[in-house]
Amino acid sequence: MTTIDPSAHLARVRETAPLIHNITNFVAMNAMANVLLAIGASPAMVHAREEAAEFAGLAQALTLNIGTLSPHWVEAMLEAASAARAAGTPWVLDPVAVGATAYRRKAARQLIALSPTVIRGNASEIIALATEGASGRGVDSTDAADSAREAALQLARETGAVVAVTGEQDLVTDGKRLAWVEGGHPLMPRVTTLGCSLTGVVAAFIAEAEDPFVATVAALACYAKAGEIAGQDAKGPGSFSVAFLDALYGLDAQALTDRHLEIHHV
Amino acid sequence: MTTIDPSAHLARVRETAPLIHNITNFVAMNAMANVLLAIGASPAMVHAREEAAEFAGLAQALTLNIGTLSPHWVEAMLEAASAARAAGTPWVLDPVAVGATAYRRKAARQLIALSPTVIRGNASEIIALATEGASGRGVDSTDAADSAREAALQLARETGAVVAVTGEQDLVTDGKRLAWVEGGHPLMPRVTTLGCSLTGVVAAFIAEAEDPFVATVAALACYAKAGEIAGQDAKGPGSFSVAFLDALYGLDAQALTDRHLEIHHV
Amino acid sequence: MTTIDPSAHLARVRETAPLIHNITNFVAMNAMANVLLAIGASPAMVHAREEAAEFAGLAQALTLNIGTLSPHWVEAMLEAASAARAAGTPWVLDPVAVGATAYRRKAARQLIALSPTVIRGNASEIIALATEGASGRGVDSTDAADSAREAALQLARETGAVVAVTGEQDLVTDGKRLAWVEGGHPLMPRVTTLGCSLTGVVAAFIAEAEDPFVATVAALACYAKAGEIAGQDAKGPGSFSVAFLDALYGLDAQALTDRHLEIHHV
Repeated sequence: MTTIDPSAHLARVRETAPLIHNITNFVAMNAMANVLLAIGASPAMVHAREEAAEFAGLAQALTLNIGTLSPHWVEAMLEAASAARAAGTPWVLDPVAVGATAYRRKAARQLIALSPTVIRGNASEIIALATEGASGRGVDSTDAADSAREAALQLARETGAVVAVTGEQDLVTDGKRLAWVEGGHPLMPRVTTLGCSLTGVVAAFIAEAEDPFVATVAALACYAKAGEIAGQDAKGPGSFSVAFLDALYGLDAQALTDRHLEIHHV
Repeated sequence: MTTIDPSAHLARVRETAPLIHNITNFVAMNAMANVLLAIGASPAMVHAREEAAEFAGLAQALTLNIGTLSPHWVEAMLEAASAARAAGTPWVLDPVAVGATAYRRKAARQLIALSPTVIRGNASEIIALATEGASGRGVDSTDAADSAREAALQLARETGAVVAVTGEQDLVTDGKRLAWVEGGHPLMPRVTTLGCSLTGVVAAFIAEAEDPFVATVAALACYAKAGEIAGQDAKGPGSFSVAFLDALYGLDAQALTDRHLEIHHV
Repeated sequence: MTTIDPSAHLARVRETAPLIHNITNFVAMNAMANVLLAIGASPAMVHAREEAAEFAGLAQALTLNIGTLSPHWVEAMLEAASAARAAGTPWVLDPVAVGATAYRRKAARQLIALSPTVIRGNASEIIALATEGASGRGVDSTDAADSAREAALQLARETGAVVAVTGEQDLVTDGKRLAWVEGGHPLMPRVTTLGCSLTGVVAAFIAEAEDPFVATVAALACYAKAGEIAGQDAKGPGSFSVAFLDALYGLDAQALTDRHLEIHHV
């Protein structure tokens, strides 16, 4: 068993300010850009088929989120993922509500075939991806991360991706190693697109990392800690959102000293 | 004359957490999702023609907002409304700036033909829908709700929909009954898409309601009360927005005891 | 050398509440609408080719932002700019990340041919527009405004537009006159789309102005002052954003008395 220090990963993001190219849903765009700026990365939202592949070549990491699809966007996602793969740029898939419709399942299948470095979803989404037969109710997960343990391991082994299942507790696995991340706050699911924004933070952490599994765990630990800090004085989801951006921005090594992240071999 | 207790309606929304499917404008998406989460509902934004009808079948209510149209979206709206109608799922039309262009007037006409359960707009929009000849300046209403009283009654009788005219005072009618809702705060029109987000709250309240007229009045009363609470310490539209989400989240029966909602027969 | 009083310009915006038509990127839409409402203008986001030209005829000013393009939107932008030009309505171009891809460079070239009244960008973008050979890293500028002085003068002389280069210091020129605007706060680049939103404020100030150069300088001065006020108690980008909207809303002549805006002839 080894341990991870998330503060070193955070420091590297702030030093390198990686350019993160995002094709994400309309609901998340603004919030995700603000989260990435607060953590020290440089976000760009570029989705047109006419430029997505070219732009993917400029970025240090790419995220693809299927929250609000349309045919034009699916094509741009496929081209961006192909360009990232060809350039060796890491990329993260966010399979929002993948169980809800046939259109989403098909898009997710096509994207997974292009070898995402990390897949980040809630338990319902990861189970839906692993089993293909399950169906989800919408964007909110009704399952705890623990219930997706087997599905996450299976998905990681089949795809070669790091799989992160986020919820009250987070679980990360690459099929051989597994880590749990504690923290966060009960108001987090009451603020829209905090999960989508976390996908961007994962991308920022894996952008220059040697080991995407370790970097993903570090990203989740920083996010959870910022959630804890933000929750201390929040009166509701409005003041929580504001405090969360401030907490991400102010996060430092001292705030992260209580994070003991253990990696288990499975 | 009968009276309505909005707190019972709010409690039902929180217990059932209805899945609200929204095809809304780009400006409103994030704010509307946060408002719906704060009130206790589960929002989903799904607009692709490839999946809108399928998703409408999963939801407990649907909202369609013509704020930022394009041909692809109008088609998806028509399919979603048809699917909702076929499934008996209630749906709300938000005719943003319908008087401004011929394209909007046509889209609104097509959607009204698919029997919305509720139509919620400002006075200018409701007058434009009822008269078809009027024109609006943009998204902001220049008319008070009272000026749309006759237009609202006419529109309700012609379409069978509950019509809600929101403004400094709100007016709700189903053509036979009429109620006024007081409250809110002068900063509300200085925050973008609070009207669009209210359309989502109306959908959440009618999702499982027996009487959509009564549920619409209850939704508006809760919203107005949250606005009053938020306005108490707000220094401007920024702090108002934050306090408004907190107020929606914290709204309870005690805060709502001063709401006396009378229904008049017309 | 003459001086400018920004408070008179701000007062005119609040009195006339100009309708500002924006075809802007998805990330900026909500934030920009809130900024425009806070300053006293009336924003509308209308991008469909089916109605953009018609709507441009209703507005007092138009903004076009190339942040998240697609072919349908580029066509709508060209039609809206043509309609604005035909009607004598002033319009502002925001060439987001124009150096990043060939698609953006082409769109910007087509739009500049339609005679924008003002071009507002960061130093990297203005240099990319003026030199056509330069390339940008993304949406964030890596150059100070001063480094774009010659490029701004050249671009203003070639296009006839007022050119505003914004950054830690802002520079405005029409090719014959030049002004510097100081102020703002280091947290401003850590909040997404504050630059895009400023483009809307410039549009609101030039909407009814006799001299777009002077009105642009006044807009930038108000924005910078609001940034200073917001920064006084901000703990990070979250609380800064909230305070910034409050500061724009509360801005008055007294707050602006310390602004000495000198116009230099070049």
